[in-house]
Amino acid sequence: MLNKQTTVGVAGASGYGGAELLRVLHDHPAFEVGVVAGGTTAGLPLSEVFPHLRDDTPLVASLPGSFDGCGLVFLATPHELSASLAPALVDAGIRVVDLSAAFRLDSSTFEQWYEMPHPAPGSTPAVYGLPELFADDIPAAQLVANPGCYPTAALLALLPLRDLVVPESLHIAGLSGTSGAGKGLRDDLHVTHASNNVAAYGAPSHRHTPEIEQAWNRLTGARSAVTFTPHLVPMPRGLLCTVTADLLADVDADQVRQAAEKAYQDSPFVTVVAAGRWPSTTHLRGSNGAALGVAVDPRTRRVTASCAIDNLGKGAAGQAVQNANLMFGLPQDAGLSAVGVYP
Amino acid sequence: MLNKQTTVGVAGASGYGGAELLRVLHDHPAFEVGVVAGGTTAGLPLSEVFPHLRDDTPLVASLPGSFDGCGLVFLATPHELSASLAPALVDAGIRVVDLSAAFRLDSSTFEQWYEMPHPAPGSTPAVYGLPELFADDIPAAQLVANPGCYPTAALLALLPLRDLVVPESLHIAGLSGTSGAGKGLRDDLHVTHASNNVAAYGAPSHRHTPEIEQAWNRLTGARSAVTFTPHLVPMPRGLLCTVTADLLADVDADQVRQAAEKAYQDSPFVTVVAAGRWPSTTHLRGSNGAALGVAVDPRTRRVTASCAIDNLGKGAAGQAVQNANLMFGLPQDAGLSAVGVYP
Amino acid sequence: MLNKQTTVGVAGASGYGGAELLRVLHDHPAFEVGVVAGGTTAGLPLSEVFPHLRDDTPLVASLPGSFDGCGLVFLATPHELSASLAPALVDAGIRVVDLSAAFRLDSSTFEQWYEMPHPAPGSTPAVYGLPELFADDIPAAQLVANPGCYPTAALLALLPLRDLVVPESLHIAGLSGTSGAGKGLRDDLHVTHASNNVAAYGAPSHRHTPEIEQAWNRLTGARSAVTFTPHLVPMPRGLLCTVTADLLADVDADQVRQAAEKAYQDSPFVTVVAAGRWPSTTHLRGSNGAALGVAVDPRTRRVTASCAIDNLGKGAAGQAVQNANLMFGLPQDAGLSAVGVYP
Amino acid sequence: MLNKQTTVGVAGASGYGGAELLRVLHDHPAFEVGVVAGGTTAGLPLSEVFPHLRDDTPLVASLPGSFDGCGLVFLATPHELSASLAPALVDAGIRVVDLSAAFRLDSSTFEQWYEMPHPAPGSTPAVYGLPELFADDIPAAQLVANPGCYPTAALLALLPLRDLVVPESLHIAGLSGTSGAGKGLRDDLHVTHASNNVAAYGAPSHRHTPEIEQAWNRLTGARSAVTFTPHLVPMPRGLLCTVTADLLADVDADQVRQAAEKAYQDSPFVTVVAAGRWPSTTHLRGSNGAALGVAVDPRTRRVTASCAIDNLGKGAAGQAVQNANLMFGLPQDAGLSAVGVYP
Repeated sequence: MLNKQTTVGVAGASGYGGAELLRVLHDHPAFEVGVVAGGTTAGLPLSEVFPHLRDDTPLVASLPGSFDGCGLVFLATPHELSASLAPALVDAGIRVVDLSAAFRLDSSTFEQWYEMPHPAPGSTPAVYGLPELFADDIPAAQLVANPGCYPTAALLALLPLRDLVVPESLHIAGLSGTSGAGKGLRDDLHVTHASNNVAAYGAPSHRHTPEIEQAWNRLTGARSAVTFTPHLVPMPRGLLCTVTADLLADVDADQVRQAAEKAYQDSPFVTVVAAGRWPSTTHLRGSNGAALGVAVDPRTRRVTASCAIDNLGKGAAGQAVQNANLMFGLPQDAGLSAVGVYP
Repeated sequence: MLNKQTTVGVAGASGYGGAELLRVLHDHPAFEVGVVAGGTTAGLPLSEVFPHLRDDTPLVASLPGSFDGCGLVFLATPHELSASLAPALVDAGIRVVDLSAAFRLDSSTFEQWYEMPHPAPGSTPAVYGLPELFADDIPAAQLVANPGCYPTAALLALLPLRDLVVPESLHIAGLSGTSGAGKGLRDDLHVTHASNNVAAYGAPSHRHTPEIEQAWNRLTGARSAVTFTPHLVPMPRGLLCTVTADLLADVDADQVRQAAEKAYQDSPFVTVVAAGRWPSTTHLRGSNGAALGVAVDPRTRRVTASCAIDNLGKGAAGQAVQNANLMFGLPQDAGLSAVGVYP
Repeated sequence: MLNKQTTVGVAGASGYGGAELLRVLHDHPAFEVGVVAGGTTAGLPLSEVFPHLRDDTPLVASLPGSFDGCGLVFLATPHELSASLAPALVDAGIRVVDLSAAFRLDSSTFEQWYEMPHPAPGSTPAVYGLPELFADDIPAAQLVANPGCYPTAALLALLPLRDLVVPESLHIAGLSGTSGAGKGLRDDLHVTHASNNVAAYGAPSHRHTPEIEQAWNRLTGARSAVTFTPHLVPMPRGLLCTVTADLLADVDADQVRQAAEKAYQDSPFVTVVAAGRWPSTTHLRGSNGAALGVAVDPRTRRVTASCAIDNLGKGAAGQAVQNANLMFGLPQDAGLSAVGVYP
Repeated sequence: MLNKQTTVGVAGASGYGGAELLRVLHDHPAFEVGVVAGGTTAGLPLSEVFPHLRDDTPLVASLPGSFDGCGLVFLATPHELSASLAPALVDAGIRVVDLSAAFRLDSSTFEQWYEMPHPAPGSTPAVYGLPELFADDIPAAQLVANPGCYPTAALLALLPLRDLVVPESLHIAGLSGTSGAGKGLRDDLHVTHASNNVAAYGAPSHRHTPEIEQAWNRLTGARSAVTFTPHLVPMPRGLLCTVTADLLADVDADQVRQAAEKAYQDSPFVTVVAAGRWPSTTHLRGSNGAALGVAVDPRTRRVTASCAIDNLGKGAAGQAVQNANLMFGLPQDAGLSAVGVYP
């Protein structure tokens, strides 16, 4: 068993992503949480914000200097704040996993979709931290951009299809639990409104769209635009992306299934469900797992691939810890479980 | 105000569709429910099966003779039973609205997807009862095949797009509340499993697929196959279909919006939500209303159209009463409301 | 069928109670909604606030003069606003059903629990509008104080027990759906927090406590204090009060059941469920119905009585219309249904 | 860190309690699960029954011989099966934690409430395994009867009140998530029915009543009967018991609060929430924690105490592991966390 040899910081601890990081890191064998930072909650005991963590430590301010002595900082902060914190931390020799969108996109795409200058971190470009796709880049990274929740599920569904479908034919339906919309108070997140409701939102220009495209194009070498439609569904956690796409000529159902199984045969986190079944988000709750189902429609010559995750787990905090494990030479599943909290 | 001049029967009253028919018909100005039939529940008081109806009338057996004296019978029965009941009733001079799939498809398509012989009703072919698309056929019909819940939402989204998109480019994501899966006891419908879960099911060969195709091809004159992926979402009522499709060359966002608004400008039930918004199922609960949102993505040259209904209302019982109103020369909204039971 | 002979106003139309009033009144045979008033929403079209009502009428300001020409005004306003509006309306000859707490309590009790002066309406004392208990007072009333949601359910459970239990022995557990907490944005009403949660709140000094006491003491002639513990449960609508109390000597289970059945034998809205069963809130949704279950524990010599309602129906808007019906000499169920929107 | 020195068995692994045991034991430092037994599921891979566990081990039959080599067996089996398995295992020298009701009650009470002979385990009487109340008995026990979910929450609320209230004055309202009702298929557990519903059930003679009484009388030395009313609430996990009771003369609010804080000052699992607050079940999800709130009503001279747990955690599997820890001389929180999976 590893000693807790690395002190880590968590910024943005008053959001759901930060809270889930603290929960996951609570029993981590190698990372010791030494600094917990908030924004408007700085000064409050953590237990006031998140009673479930049972920790009365006061939150500190999210300033670069707060993290002195840390070997790694997780930024679960808004992208504007990550944009300033991350370069400062990296310059101070502190490695960073950023859960915001600040460093996920190339510079011109970022500026187009986020309408602010790209926070270029000088000589330390960010690595896109989706280990199942780009594991080789992560160990040496100083700054990892942790993927968005929808891109994680979408890209896990897409990885096995990289050589099997027409690149520009992707249609993706996303279904997310409500924690994906954050803790802020909004009429459409009032429990009385939201608890028996589904609706699309943000389409066709949700900001996770270019993130899916960028990684997909990196996988395929193409320059494709993606159609992505997210929907909010009434459950606190859980996220599903269902991809439909045109198969290349001659690709059949067996090839698709074999590609899926091969892609994840060594994965501690991603499973492929049996033919004829589709994954359920409920089995992934609280875990870093993902489950993928695939099927081919011979009538339309299209493939359907559906991937379920916990948006706060593999879609945020779990994946952030997986990235940190790789950055520090630990087994990628150190402190992480693929076993869900069901029911 | 109309007198209650027509006695109607409801078969399949122990299912959710039958119960919703009885609720809607309770205050109908022209139809008087005279016969309520069940299957295994025959003999029980209705209140034993559905306490919310507060009606102790015993259910009778679902036999053709049970409906003597009725001018109209609503069949909310399984398609196998509808297949035998409907022709017998029509032969006896009783008009029928069938909520099952028995008469929705042309004969060869039905046999291919349902693996049973088509129950051809002799000289009385069924009319597909989606009034917003095919209103002219309904008034004279002896037998109306009430559309499925998904096809209703999908086709209401598709109607304005008939001349604007590449017919064979449809990708449809469906999200249904759990009452769409019926009252039968199943592990995946156990509340403890289903109440925080989403999953795809039935894809890519859900039986509502050919129903959408058949009507879409009738609208467009094409012979297109459709990609349809239904998902179960954790709420009792409500259904959403989101269509994405390739725009024809030169079609722009204004044309799409105008087509949507024009298609439903005289509809008592279908509304088009403002640009930049998407419809929510929660506003339609308990009503016969539908709400449609549309948007164009100039990057992909695709359109997104999302339509919300109550699967038991416009997706089943409400639409059945709307059809019956048309059959009997009544205003199509007699006894029906587009005002939802919110929240 | 009645003509729509009375023009009514609804103030507080941007809250859930106001919205439900508008929904119920939509098809009322005698009341025509002529004025819809809001607070901060004045000037907005109603459909902007509540899309489910499909009504673009702009809301007017909640000023006494706004309601000129109305024969009746429903006030679904905060108690501070009702306190000033109601007397002004009554003085202008307009009858009022007030859904707030402003006029439910006697003056000293009100001032003690609400910490503001009692808005005594001069020569027009308010009548407590719980028709099943105090029907005689309502027809002649100029101002009816519509009961709170918990008191309605609790008192419907208590009515049959008035001569059977020790008056001061009442323990009442309340379970309310979230619409009872209003539309205001609060951390504990964020869907992500509230949708899998139950918790007590307000105990032991929730403001519905003195309201239950006052009516109970009026029924029994005693001066008892009541123990009441409300809990928030994760569903939008529905409310349950379960009363446990000490039986008087010699009272047995048959007497309790007979008292329950007798109390509601002529009620169009309240049913008593069979022995061995307990009422479910889901069957009452959207209706003005109530369901009551009773049982006796011979070991403890205590009675359990549990009453389910829709907090927005019989617990608010439905009951307000029932009161208005009585005030205008209409059948008490005019425009109201006891049939729930299930599931 | 402890080695995994003890092999344990889990019987009843196809129920929710068994599944939660396997999840909790997955990372336990000292117990290694060696045998997993089912009933009708024997022979199936565990992953077929519970995909979230990601374990393809086939379930074995629940026979005593299946557990040879185990040092401890957890029985998450129906009480009829526990009644025969537990004595056989104890006779074979295997220690047992039984999650059923078979050994919780004294012999005559058991026979009265369960209508079957008591399965007296010869010379090895069972110990009632509620560590916060009866920790001293557990280390030496061969057979521990793990408490029911409601009794756990009720008794944690009652412990601080043992010397402060009139023993026979307890009124307890229980609110349980649906997993408490088990995995069996029932109409009232169909998601479409249950997901927006609350109702009482089993009152006034739910079988957890005598269990609460027996432990309460052991604490107080009295012979009191308890009034207990359980309600089913629409969430998968979580349980709350709210107790109201008459204070003894001269007991004041400070004494109640001090008693609560003192009772749990050294507990790793039970916290007391601040004055004016009430505990929420959502913070306990997936944990072995409990949260208690207390308040005094000076008007009624009654106390309100409300305790929240996860019915599958502290109310079942978590507590079973806590008992096992004590039986094997481990820290009582080995492998257990009080940190909830929130939201």
